Amino acid sequence: MATTLITGGTVVNATGTGDADVLIDGETIVAVLAPGSTLLGHDLARSVDTVVDATGKYVIPGGIDAHTHMEMPFGGTFASDTFETGTRAAAIGGTTSIVDFVVQYPEQNILEQYHAWHEKAAGNCAIDYGFHQILSDVQDSSLTAMDELITEGVTSFKLFMAYKGVFLSDDGQILRAFQKGADNGAMMMMHAENGAIIDVLVQQALEAGKTTPYYHGISRPWQAEEEATHRAIMIADLTGAPLYVVHVSAKQAVEQIAAARDRGLNVFGETCPQYLYLSLEDQLGAVSEEWGDFEGAKWVCSTPLRSKHEGHQHHMWQSLRTNDIQMVSTDHCPFCMKDQKDMGIGNFAKIPNGIGSVEHRMDLMYQGFVSGQITLPRWVELTSTTPARMFGMYGKKGVIQPGADGDVVVYDPNGHTSIGVGKTHHMNMDYSAWEGFEIDGHVDTVVSRGKVVVDGGSYLGSKGDGRYIKRGLSQYLV
Amino acid sequence: MATTLITGGTVVNATGTGDADVLIDGETIVAVLAPGSTLLGHDLARSVDTVVDATGKYVIPGGIDAHTHMEMPFGGTFASDTFETGTRAAAIGGTTSIVDFVVQYPEQNILEQYHAWHEKAAGNCAIDYGFHQILSDVQDSSLTAMDELITEGVTSFKLFMAYKGVFLSDDGQILRAFQKGADNGAMMMMHAENGAIIDVLVQQALEAGKTTPYYHGISRPWQAEEEATHRAIMIADLTGAPLYVVHVSAKQAVEQIAAARDRGLNVFGETCPQYLYLSLEDQLGAVSEEWGDFEGAKWVCSTPLRSKHEGHQHHMWQSLRTNDIQMVSTDHCPFCMKDQKDMGIGNFAKIPNGIGSVEHRMDLMYQGFVSGQITLPRWVELTSTTPARMFGMYGKKGVIQPGADGDVVVYDPNGHTSIGVGKTHHMNMDYSAWEGFEIDGHVDTVVSRGKVVVDGGSYLGSKGDGRYIKRGLSQYLV
Amino acid sequence: MATTLITGGTVVNATGTGDADVLIDGETIVAVLAPGSTLLGHDLARSVDTVVDATGKYVIPGGIDAHTHMEMPFGGTFASDTFETGTRAAAIGGTTSIVDFVVQYPEQNILEQYHAWHEKAAGNCAIDYGFHQILSDVQDSSLTAMDELITEGVTSFKLFMAYKGVFLSDDGQILRAFQKGADNGAMMMMHAENGAIIDVLVQQALEAGKTTPYYHGISRPWQAEEEATHRAIMIADLTGAPLYVVHVSAKQAVEQIAAARDRGLNVFGETCPQYLYLSLEDQLGAVSEEWGDFEGAKWVCSTPLRSKHEGHQHHMWQSLRTNDIQMVSTDHCPFCMKDQKDMGIGNFAKIPNGIGSVEHRMDLMYQGFVSGQITLPRWVELTSTTPARMFGMYGKKGVIQPGADGDVVVYDPNGHTSIGVGKTHHMNMDYSAWEGFEIDGHVDTVVSRGKVVVDGGSYLGSKGDGRYIKRGLSQYLV
Amino acid sequence: MATTLITGGTVVNATGTGDADVLIDGETIVAVLAPGSTLLGHDLARSVDTVVDATGKYVIPGGIDAHTHMEMPFGGTFASDTFETGTRAAAIGGTTSIVDFVVQYPEQNILEQYHAWHEKAAGNCAIDYGFHQILSDVQDSSLTAMDELITEGVTSFKLFMAYKGVFLSDDGQILRAFQKGADNGAMMMMHAENGAIIDVLVQQALEAGKTTPYYHGISRPWQAEEEATHRAIMIADLTGAPLYVVHVSAKQAVEQIAAARDRGLNVFGETCPQYLYLSLEDQLGAVSEEWGDFEGAKWVCSTPLRSKHEGHQHHMWQSLRTNDIQMVSTDHCPFCMKDQKDMGIGNFAKIPNGIGSVEHRMDLMYQGFVSGQITLPRWVELTSTTPARMFGMYGKKGVIQPGADGDVVVYDPNGHTSIGVGKTHHMNMDYSAWEGFEIDGHVDTVVSRGKVVVDGGSYLGSKGDGRYIKRGLSQYLV
Repeated sequence: MATTLITGGTVVNATGTGDADVLIDGETIVAVLAPGSTLLGHDLARSVDTVVDATGKYVIPGGIDAHTHMEMPFGGTFASDTFETGTRAAAIGGTTSIVDFVVQYPEQNILEQYHAWHEKAAGNCAIDYGFHQILSDVQDSSLTAMDELITEGVTSFKLFMAYKGVFLSDDGQILRAFQKGADNGAMMMMHAENGAIIDVLVQQALEAGKTTPYYHGISRPWQAEEEATHRAIMIADLTGAPLYVVHVSAKQAVEQIAAARDRGLNVFGETCPQYLYLSLEDQLGAVSEEWGDFEGAKWVCSTPLRSKHEGHQHHMWQSLRTNDIQMVSTDHCPFCMKDQKDMGIGNFAKIPNGIGSVEHRMDLMYQGFVSGQITLPRWVELTSTTPARMFGMYGKKGVIQPGADGDVVVYDPNGHTSIGVGKTHHMNMDYSAWEGFEIDGHVDTVVSRGKVVVDGGSYLGSKGDGRYIKRGLSQYLV
Repeated sequence: MATTLITGGTVVNATGTGDADVLIDGETIVAVLAPGSTLLGHDLARSVDTVVDATGKYVIPGGIDAHTHMEMPFGGTFASDTFETGTRAAAIGGTTSIVDFVVQYPEQNILEQYHAWHEKAAGNCAIDYGFHQILSDVQDSSLTAMDELITEGVTSFKLFMAYKGVFLSDDGQILRAFQKGADNGAMMMMHAENGAIIDVLVQQALEAGKTTPYYHGISRPWQAEEEATHRAIMIADLTGAPLYVVHVSAKQAVEQIAAARDRGLNVFGETCPQYLYLSLEDQLGAVSEEWGDFEGAKWVCSTPLRSKHEGHQHHMWQSLRTNDIQMVSTDHCPFCMKDQKDMGIGNFAKIPNGIGSVEHRMDLMYQGFVSGQITLPRWVELTSTTPARMFGMYGKKGVIQPGADGDVVVYDPNGHTSIGVGKTHHMNMDYSAWEGFEIDGHVDTVVSRGKVVVDGGSYLGSKGDGRYIKRGLSQYLV
Repeated sequence: MATTLITGGTVVNATGTGDADVLIDGETIVAVLAPGSTLLGHDLARSVDTVVDATGKYVIPGGIDAHTHMEMPFGGTFASDTFETGTRAAAIGGTTSIVDFVVQYPEQNILEQYHAWHEKAAGNCAIDYGFHQILSDVQDSSLTAMDELITEGVTSFKLFMAYKGVFLSDDGQILRAFQKGADNGAMMMMHAENGAIIDVLVQQALEAGKTTPYYHGISRPWQAEEEATHRAIMIADLTGAPLYVVHVSAKQAVEQIAAARDRGLNVFGETCPQYLYLSLEDQLGAVSEEWGDFEGAKWVCSTPLRSKHEGHQHHMWQSLRTNDIQMVSTDHCPFCMKDQKDMGIGNFAKIPNGIGSVEHRMDLMYQGFVSGQITLPRWVELTSTTPARMFGMYGKKGVIQPGADGDVVVYDPNGHTSIGVGKTHHMNMDYSAWEGFEIDGHVDTVVSRGKVVVDGGSYLGSKGDGRYIKRGLSQYLV
Repeated sequence: MATTLITGGTVVNATGTGDADVLIDGETIVAVLAPGSTLLGHDLARSVDTVVDATGKYVIPGGIDAHTHMEMPFGGTFASDTFETGTRAAAIGGTTSIVDFVVQYPEQNILEQYHAWHEKAAGNCAIDYGFHQILSDVQDSSLTAMDELITEGVTSFKLFMAYKGVFLSDDGQILRAFQKGADNGAMMMMHAENGAIIDVLVQQALEAGKTTPYYHGISRPWQAEEEATHRAIMIADLTGAPLYVVHVSAKQAVEQIAAARDRGLNVFGETCPQYLYLSLEDQLGAVSEEWGDFEGAKWVCSTPLRSKHEGHQHHMWQSLRTNDIQMVSTDHCPFCMKDQKDMGIGNFAKIPNGIGSVEHRMDLMYQGFVSGQITLPRWVELTSTTPARMFGMYGKKGVIQPGADGDVVVYDPNGHTSIGVGKTHHMNMDYSAWEGFEIDGHVDTVVSRGKVVVDGGSYLGSKGDGRYIKRGLSQYLV
């Protein structure tokens, strides 16, 4: 098996930095060494197959995006990235692992769905991938499936408080699933929005002729998110299950999560780059020649963008600093404007919900370091280490240490990245939600399980490189 | 220079564990390697001078006790441990660094005191040592000294809201010191008790004939701690200085700190083993043949032990899990019962305040892991990694990685430690505050800057082993 | 028309006390006068038909019980008090007005139900009565009915977050009703328990063989109440509707209400005597010769009795002092043990939910004054003045002032009341939930719209005395 | 003795309104009657000496301003209103009682000061007056004086956390005074600003050349108020004393008070019209031809005006609605610009602190009703009823009921009041802090202890009308 030595860089882990070389043997990191490429007189650089020069650069554990929806069926269409296109874009952006969601709709057999997802992914992924399982309309069989899936390495289960008839579970169903999670150690994930409220507000908006994309956000007010977050927390409190709230966007939801933490509960929150950088006001103001006032559809996602005036983005960055929010994922769920998003012209409720960001998360969060919002170790913690710990991959993923998979990114703080279609854009979308964003850094080299899959920004891998990650229980619980 | 290889163990860092060998060359860790003692075919075990077999054991970064008072002058006597005896006991207990407090009393010259402390410590310490500076009665010269001391590696300054005429600074003085801290990046440390209130309560208790040690705690109610903690936080808020509250014992003080964190402030808290394990009720009930109802003097410290009935201890463990309290130090300030504590017979106010724990912190906190209160990585984080980051030592201290000092402890989870005089007790005290505590683990080997100073529980070092740690600014700020 | 003069007493209003005589002319108070029965030389005592000597006694506005369920159909039976028996008992206990709930079950026509309730009550009541309207399964027609009922004097509407298929509205339905309330000024009342959660817990308890009355409370944990309270508050926040949470029993629910108030919302809470005096532990320990461990069924009500160990009762009294809870009603919903409660032998879920207290509320709350929990004016405010203001009756009810209805109670602080079957017990129940309670005071005289209906404890009225109260909008909003 | 009948008006009390006539016999209200001026056939209007026609107007209990400083010695000058001029202005503005502060400076004898204040006030007041006692530098003799003064009707004592060397007591002194208050039932009043912090900030501002009035506010940041408020609350918590925080201006201080109330403490807050209507930004922008940028001195008071941008005023109105703040007083402490305020030209710290508002409080708060901030009963509660209850005057003052003093104001909602020098301005000041404020109402008639002292806006009284109010303990405690 091939050996690779990454020399001269500054290794960044979640607690700090240190100048060190990293030696990968086959697929695994076997040593982290003092700089110089020698050990007890042995010149390692000469002994290895490949040397990556990381001088002046950061060497970090590969990014882990714990929230993606590749080729997800939704609203009569499919998310536009396949496992192939999506994971390749991820790799190029410095992400070496994703955890994607197996979808179960009501009436569907959970294990069959799980196997179907394996079929979609197997042989197509550029990077390693794991699965969360979505549970819709929880039944006895769902609880049984939870136990079985844990043995398969699926240790986290997502429930929905919205999307009636599609994903929604009622509070009694949620309770039962959480009881199971408390029992078998699974992490319970929650889409926390009060769907019953939202459905009424959507209908009222449409009846009032408020049909443009902006009203998507207006119809999903922060109160609906705060409320559902609180409700999920109380069910966690009642059962003892650990809870992970996905795509938190409202500061009031953060306050609920922080309060739960202060009470000692295993309650966690994830946010996404869009809730840090983009706002409802941006969406309101978006008009283009091509799409007119439908331009805002590019940023229709749920939970929605929040009002800058109300300070959600400011508070969200703060919560990343104080660890009231523990992780940043993308909720990557791309749809093209043409033939997909445009189904919602004249009716925002028909716009497929989702933004594509899997390629840019590492860059966007690095820019948070550049702008002084977070520290360098925190960048790694938010994007790699905590995701690994939260979802039972740590040791293999999320850290640069012997025994870990050879998932390493060399990031150049002197490089630059311009995001946009025709620039850096490898996702299968006809627009970029991040058009025009400039990043003061660059993903130079990406090593995935010992293989250099990206070098100088060029993709060198192939579509079968990625393997399934059989995850364990969360390593982040208190 | 000598080389040492620690093989077969499980390395525990703040974010997780991994089986790995650790190679130390001279004073520095040069590699962390996959188990097996070979690297690219080189048999390392054969190449090194010393091999420490850590099979089945935990390999952790040496403990850092960031709050000690060796031979501190107080109340007409001196803390009974010298730098020699105290650091030796620390080493035996798995602590390889301390940060001790240089004392300045009013009228004393700060820099002279700083140099005097160097003289006390130099050549006497078994392990590495740094200094915090105590500032009493802040003057213009104190602010100048802060700048100078930072260049000396003293980057943290402790103020007192109690002990009028001895340590107390008024709020205006505190404000000015905090303004300086906000400016030069120093960490402001606070003894947060409202001394003015306590002085009245002490006097009233004595006048009422309530003179036994128990009334020490009664005279320092949680309200006095909560109040001062809040006040210090508001001064931090006003100035932007980072704040570190020492020896937090009241749950209401924790709540103040947690609320400040939730508002995004750089406010931190430290607790000590005594506030986790011992209670005011224990102290009330303590009677011995030798000391009668003065027995409770053994646990007279400030802040005082808190009531178990009120739930402080329970809440404090919780706050360690949720990171509302970030570190565990000892506030090691030992006094013998005979000729020291007994000055307070008939008047608790004359009992020298302090408990000796520097030897037992690592064990006591490990027991917190055994009893399910904290995780194994959290044990390391609380006792080594965060102290290093908080006080500007990380990279050299607090982590097992190349470039770090060779401060490593091999901890045996199958060993056992019985604490008590005549058992494990190397501190210069005629009693143990921890008499009878049983620990389900054992400090087997302690390596300090590459030298094996403890092996199989036997002390092999000599008194000049330790060196001064020139610290940088805090690496824990958000 | 007859005139009545109440002389020599101490009038207690919500803000304080004053010695004064009260003159009633016909049905209306026409003057409050300085003691002495003379005015500008006119000897009033000689001019009136009746003089009530209140020397040494309190003269208070008649009690208003804003939460009763007379002859309510529920679970295949009917609450055992008819309007006749229930209002007579109320009168004897010093309550001169009730607000009862018109029940609408799904599919029933709201206005028809409203008229049916009028038929039940008309000619049968000993005291004045108003109606709240229960809305089940909110539809468009429900919203229309709200507007119509307001013109009829029904200005408050109760929704349920529990009792699926019986009373439950989903959150979307609740939203729409609250929007209507925000629009027309109606007070939205909420039974705030998460029914979906409770239904699962009940089923699980029964399946586990936990069938005794105690498990009724265990199956309705405080989390289910706190959660629903929070949810209702957020819907009030979203819509701007005023919210009144009925029968609050959990301290955590109180905290939610207090937090909402601190944010400036029109959110209010009511508690009941059972949540102040009785506990889950009492219920657990209840065993009798007649009923064995089914004895606890006597106190099966929803929300349930709460654990004393958790401090709910203590906190509830406190919240009455601080006005975090604004009112005390009874939720009078009596069922006999024989042939009613006993339907639940072997299955607590079949026990009709309810406690009878309408007769004893004024006494039980007076005892709160005797025991130092509340002040004398607060007693009047909680039981009469705020109920009148909250539900749009103030001016006519809830205060002793000219123009108010002649609803006056003379309460003797030197009297005594022993509660229990065979003692004071006029409710149509075969047991008393308050058996053995002793009150250090006594309802001596009750005047209802100018007529002395109780004197020396004897009932002198007749069943048609009471009239319908056409209520206005709440007078308590901020 | 003369009799007066006020007919045809709407009586407003704290809990609501009612149309009623009010009969005063001599100095005391003897009856509140149904409109029509007849009682049991007696035509009262014919029997009385004076009839006041209040048709279409509000009849309210006379205003009580519980915070005034008439002719107060401060900073080398005296507040410009004497008891004569100040109480006359008060009367014209609808205030019939004041509670003024007896000043004790360090070294002064408290009881001598108390008697000196009696001498100043006796025979000079247009309306009734009571005294609070200021305690500076609390000593044993202060505690003794507290007991004595309570028997004199001085039942409230004000301490200061600011003004070192003038008023300041340290926390130990405050503790002892509060212990005494807990013991004898006195209300402890607090000027809650951290003086030690402010003194440093003032000095730093002056040294930096920031000398204009605006920097008065900048030097007294909200943190200094919030901190001191919290500290006072904790001392109240520790001792059990009731606490009344004067002139609350920061929303964060309100939050502390609200949190204390939610914990069940007897902690109360007062605000003043200036903190509701005026802002720091107003002060910053104030420039006049006469005074240039010293114009802002007109609004120099402590606590200072707060930033509108930070939302203090908005939050303060809200807190009045929710009863988190219980009262509105003026802190009337007038100084002229010429020869008084102008001492601070070039040094804001020398500007005498104070604003004159005693004449306008009732109008300014009525305007709060007009603008929808508060209800009509709340207007009366904030300005009369709660002040009476809070400070032990209720029954005689603060309510229209038999036995109460004949202190009644007839307020015309169809009248209009233009505030300003040369318009309505009877205070002895050469400017008005409220110049240009327009009020949609008018004080028509003021009756003080039965005597019509203001009619149609004309002052008819004489300077000896007012008498000393011997107050009891607070009637507002829970």
